Amino acid sequence: MKQLTFNSIKGNIWLEGLFGLEKENLRVDTTGKLALTPHPAVFGNKLKHPYITTDFSESQVEMITPPLPEISQAVGFLETIHDIVSLELGNELLWPQSIPPILPADQQIPIASYDEDGAEAREYREFLAQKYGPKNQLFSGIHFNFSFSDKLLEMLYRKANTAISFDDFKDEIYLKTVRQLLRLRWLYVLLYGCSPVVDPSFELRCKMSPYPVDKNVIALSIRNSCYGYRNFDDLYPDYSSVQAYKASIDQMVKDQKISAPKELYSAIRPKFIQSPDHISYLEFRCIDIDPTTKAGISTEALHFLHALALYGLLTDEPDDFGPKVQQQANRYHTGVALYGLNSTPFLIDEERQNVWHKTQTLIQEIIKLFELQGIVYPEYGKALNQALLLAQKPENRKVYEVLSGVVKDGYVQYHIQKAGEYLNDSRDKSYQFHGLEDMELSTQLLLREAAKRGVSFEILDRKENFVRLKKGDNIQFVKQATKTSLDNYASILAMENKLVTKKILGEHGIRVPRGLEYTRADEAKTDFIFHQGKAIVVKPNQTNFGLGITILKENTDEQTFRRAVDIAFEHDTTILIEEFIAGREFRIFVIGEEVVGILHRVPANVTGDGIRTIRELVELKNQDPLRGKGYRTPLEKIRLEEAEAMFLKQQGKDFDSVPAKGEVVFLRENSNISTGGDSIDFTDDIPDSYKQIAVLAAKALNVKITGLDMIIPDVSTEATDDNYAIIELNFNPAIHIHCHPFQGKNRKLNEKLMDALGY
Amino acid sequence: MKQLTFNSIKGNIWLEGLFGLEKENLRVDTTGKLALTPHPAVFGNKLKHPYITTDFSESQVEMITPPLPEISQAVGFLETIHDIVSLELGNELLWPQSIPPILPADQQIPIASYDEDGAEAREYREFLAQKYGPKNQLFSGIHFNFSFSDKLLEMLYRKANTAISFDDFKDEIYLKTVRQLLRLRWLYVLLYGCSPVVDPSFELRCKMSPYPVDKNVIALSIRNSCYGYRNFDDLYPDYSSVQAYKASIDQMVKDQKISAPKELYSAIRPKFIQSPDHISYLEFRCIDIDPTTKAGISTEALHFLHALALYGLLTDEPDDFGPKVQQQANRYHTGVALYGLNSTPFLIDEERQNVWHKTQTLIQEIIKLFELQGIVYPEYGKALNQALLLAQKPENRKVYEVLSGVVKDGYVQYHIQKAGEYLNDSRDKSYQFHGLEDMELSTQLLLREAAKRGVSFEILDRKENFVRLKKGDNIQFVKQATKTSLDNYASILAMENKLVTKKILGEHGIRVPRGLEYTRADEAKTDFIFHQGKAIVVKPNQTNFGLGITILKENTDEQTFRRAVDIAFEHDTTILIEEFIAGREFRIFVIGEEVVGILHRVPANVTGDGIRTIRELVELKNQDPLRGKGYRTPLEKIRLEEAEAMFLKQQGKDFDSVPAKGEVVFLRENSNISTGGDSIDFTDDIPDSYKQIAVLAAKALNVKITGLDMIIPDVSTEATDDNYAIIELNFNPAIHIHCHPFQGKNRKLNEKLMDALGY
Repeated sequence: MKQLTFNSIKGNIWLEGLFGLEKENLRVDTTGKLALTPHPAVFGNKLKHPYITTDFSESQVEMITPPLPEISQAVGFLETIHDIVSLELGNELLWPQSIPPILPADQQIPIASYDEDGAEAREYREFLAQKYGPKNQLFSGIHFNFSFSDKLLEMLYRKANTAISFDDFKDEIYLKTVRQLLRLRWLYVLLYGCSPVVDPSFELRCKMSPYPVDKNVIALSIRNSCYGYRNFDDLYPDYSSVQAYKASIDQMVKDQKISAPKELYSAIRPKFIQSPDHISYLEFRCIDIDPTTKAGISTEALHFLHALALYGLLTDEPDDFGPKVQQQANRYHTGVALYGLNSTPFLIDEERQNVWHKTQTLIQEIIKLFELQGIVYPEYGKALNQALLLAQKPENRKVYEVLSGVVKDGYVQYHIQKAGEYLNDSRDKSYQFHGLEDMELSTQLLLREAAKRGVSFEILDRKENFVRLKKGDNIQFVKQATKTSLDNYASILAMENKLVTKKILGEHGIRVPRGLEYTRADEAKTDFIFHQGKAIVVKPNQTNFGLGITILKENTDEQTFRRAVDIAFEHDTTILIEEFIAGREFRIFVIGEEVVGILHRVPANVTGDGIRTIRELVELKNQDPLRGKGYRTPLEKIRLEEAEAMFLKQQGKDFDSVPAKGEVVFLRENSNISTGGDSIDFTDDIPDSYKQIAVLAAKALNVKITGLDMIIPDVSTEATDDNYAIIELNFNPAIHIHCHPFQGKNRKLNEKLMDALGY
Repeated sequence: MKQLTFNSIKGNIWLEGLFGLEKENLRVDTTGKLALTPHPAVFGNKLKHPYITTDFSESQVEMITPPLPEISQAVGFLETIHDIVSLELGNELLWPQSIPPILPADQQIPIASYDEDGAEAREYREFLAQKYGPKNQLFSGIHFNFSFSDKLLEMLYRKANTAISFDDFKDEIYLKTVRQLLRLRWLYVLLYGCSPVVDPSFELRCKMSPYPVDKNVIALSIRNSCYGYRNFDDLYPDYSSVQAYKASIDQMVKDQKISAPKELYSAIRPKFIQSPDHISYLEFRCIDIDPTTKAGISTEALHFLHALALYGLLTDEPDDFGPKVQQQANRYHTGVALYGLNSTPFLIDEERQNVWHKTQTLIQEIIKLFELQGIVYPEYGKALNQALLLAQKPENRKVYEVLSGVVKDGYVQYHIQKAGEYLNDSRDKSYQFHGLEDMELSTQLLLREAAKRGVSFEILDRKENFVRLKKGDNIQFVKQATKTSLDNYASILAMENKLVTKKILGEHGIRVPRGLEYTRADEAKTDFIFHQGKAIVVKPNQTNFGLGITILKENTDEQTFRRAVDIAFEHDTTILIEEFIAGREFRIFVIGEEVVGILHRVPANVTGDGIRTIRELVELKNQDPLRGKGYRTPLEKIRLEEAEAMFLKQQGKDFDSVPAKGEVVFLRENSNISTGGDSIDFTDDIPDSYKQIAVLAAKALNVKITGLDMIIPDVSTEATDDNYAIIELNFNPAIHIHCHPFQGKNRKLNEKLMDALGY
């Protein structure tokens, strides 16, 4: 095999590619018994859901991420699907371990059920249950799919200056990577293997010995060992070319070693998607579920694995990868899986190399290679250094944490406790799409709902929160969650223009604050007679924190009026004189002809208990997991800064004051959520008559999605022609404030939006 | 009658109101004979068209403006309807005179024809023809409708501190204005009357003498005189209250003086629209068509008239306006109409006042009143000073210009010549909506088409070019002509985002320039191997005038490539390396699934004739009426400024160089229309295969209206997969460039848009 060298290509281009994950998790009841209930109906057709389906068993949830441009995104996506599934399981939990939980008798293990379209899938599973036994099928794990970027491959191709075609060249690249990873995979298992024990109810069988073995086996990775689920025969595909690879597998089928190519359980599989003749990506299949993390896999482990693949590609192959070499590689793999718990040196090959010494040497070589290729990416550097530390102190590996937990609490109890912790975390983070935390919460919520419904999506412009949703023929472009194809452009423009909005609403008999605009003080003053005797607000056109605003509830004195005009003009060159409408402001969210959420915002505040200081009350309130910093959570932490101190001072208070029991102390004048304000759900507390007006307003502008701001003086009385006013219609209202309010129900606007979009 | 005084209300609030015009114009052939053809079918149903209909005769076009907030807008609107009608008349012209042209025998004068819905209208016209003779019905004139603003009326009401209701108060205001204007109307006729002679074929009858009179009558305003069209009897309505007014007219009907209230031809009519019991606005009916202006009326005359109305409202009434006073006012009116050509003093009343002296005194009083009330509005000031000048030099009145033209060329010939001039002007200005010249040309063109089709419209936000169209149930909001309800918001956002556009087009197999973005020079340089051997453009992300752009047609030398990267980074922090696609750029306008216009832009240029200098050639080219300054015309004048001089200098030329015959000299590098570039229509010159791709691209983004920019290297060959590239889709493309190109056909995109909007 001709060696490939690409030393002259430098930089992070080497890390570019697409990364995806598939994870199996068994559903269990709270006592750790395999759940015998059906897959949750909410996830619809198993064969069509792109992200959530079942594997062999009805109780074996399979979660699949799309190919994503960063490993961290793939892990985040997986964690999000994990969250979504967890929250739909009622009293069941996701079993956070590759080794199965407490299993019933073989015949009671539910094989995945399908409708008539799934007849073939069902048949194959029945065949597997027959051949390998259903329990063996319940070993669960994680597959890591990855490809190199087209740009990198094209650059390698140009550098190679070869006569073969680009497609053939790509196959060579991928096959070399496969061969090298097969040689090196033991290294991954050694550091990250994590299936050390089984429940006493589980009968292990080693393929080398057909009899059940000691149930007290303890190993680094039982799943990766001879006890794991694998082909009966040693099978050695030919990895020298795509053609040879395919031919060798066809021969195995012909020889009835396997029933079909998919029954070949190799540690790494080349995948053929775009074309049957060329490799699209690689699938790495040796990953144990990590019980110490909710997603079951850490980005560190995957960064290390990816680095290992690059190392393999960029270094020379020591030998031809024939059956003998493959057999040896398999021996390393299972050897490490069985004996890798030893933190003292042990031998892994004929040359009698010290495994830990060899591991450290290899990792140092990878680190050097990254330096040489100019790859500078903190997350990868961290992962490599972490791996080196593990090689130096093997007892720091996760598997020991699991083992000590199992020793302390018992196998089932330890994993059930972990599952419970993860479920709580899933509940606390139910507003979040992991890996997309930099996107707006409204978009994260919409994408969660898309993932739940099996609507595949693609992020077109991440900064812009611009995504494409797709299910069947229904393709939708959505920006910032609420900018959709449901609204026509003209209506958006009408909402955007406050003048136009007010005019149209007015024509439809809907109450809006009447007002006039002035750019000259003398004209405004001349109009005193026009405004005389009315309740008015004199205000700068644009204002912050209420500066320059005067409310004249009677407006009888001309001097006061003239002074108010002058004050407003001190803050802007355009002022407004509008009628004053007293009352609370409500955000009314309308979709189609339905009011789906009503919210009222209150400035940052605490309620006294007669004991705690304001500072302590704020700290207590800030413990709510919905409160965070930097708009990554539905609510913001209340700050104890200058603005708050000043506002308290006006009330004769400071952070160390102790409010009386029940006393509400405000720390801000403005009610923005961004400065620690509270959002209070009023959806069920506003009379229908106001909701009807909101729907009427949306219809007047021919708007399908809008967040309408209405002032209502008294929510206990029905709406009349005159006891409310609509301030504006927002064409891009946030949804997360209605989903995770400080007080009140989750109005699930992400679900409502997905309904409206036809999913 | 209680006198009203409002001295304390100051400022231009007095001028606020709504103003509308109605004008009759007879259609004539080029010899000045009344046209006997039907009203142009293009204007549809006469009873439903809000702007263009017929009056008594089928040949008597009636043009109606909506109420508008400025007199200048009303005049502009009228002129635009005049333009629109003129351009649809084939060989006919609009007769620019209140006195009819050459008329056929009575029985040949075509009374306006209607479909069955117009039976009543037809019947009434036949009754009028019978009663007054059809020729008398052909006196044509202009009616001026005006109302005071609600704000002014409310302020007056508050000031009046009266016990009566606001509605009754408004009636009082309007009735006082009617009475005063009836007293003062002679003043308007004296200055602006303009129907001095008749064609010999026309038989004048004075209602005081039933016999035909001397055909050689010369008067200031025959139409306003006893020879004009008027009721047989002297009729004196009671103007003391709305109730009395209505009762007095009902009595006339009862007495069979008139058949219905509408048959009462008073000089000023109160109009009842919102309610049958309260006045909505006033109609002033004494305006002669002014043959010296295309619209038939000048803003000056109307500003004066409006000022006269305000003067009447603001000054005390001298007496009760009973029949005797009314009779006297009528005498003044007809007296002035008959004898007002005298520029020497003549008497108009019992008190033997010198008419010119009285006129000057009154105008000076109006000017003083405006000062007193703080009304400062240059156009009104100009109009009042102009009126004063006419009173001082009566021979400067327009009527003398008409008379001297008639004397020189003959009555028919003079007016036909004027009509021809106006038709040419209508043709030259066919891109313009007068009075809305500050709006974008695309919007002006769309509104012209709306006016033509009888789609009423309202300007919601003038600066924003935001309008509302309405015909029957079809209400459309349109911003900047092409932002409409036809497009969904998501598609607009996809077009707006170049990244997303390219991605979607690419997925649909549509060719877009491939490229990569860089923010670091070292990364761009590392990618040399990726770009090597390709035709590329290295450019700053944002650039002006091609600065910092390097085109590398082969890109074989790494040093050159690295230099190009550095140069680009000198101009921006983000650079693009895109494939280079040679060819001309075309703007392809798509509506629905149809390509409706294709345009190519060429930098400012002149073609030599071997004689003229570049300066002279530019001046010649700039005479095109389509070329103007400041984007008020479809093309801009070529400038002879620094940029042009520098660009010529690079070619070894200056403004005084004489290019060879046929030589094309460019004065600019950029092809923008705004710097004098030419727009060349290619709609019929691009093979269909490219058009199909453009439509496919629009469909890929689910876009209904778009201006797509495509590079085509060779328009003589059909499109292949690879011989074109789409640069972008514009969601707000201008339409005027396709309607009035420098070279090629008017593609009438305003018509196509109105079709698409369902009108």
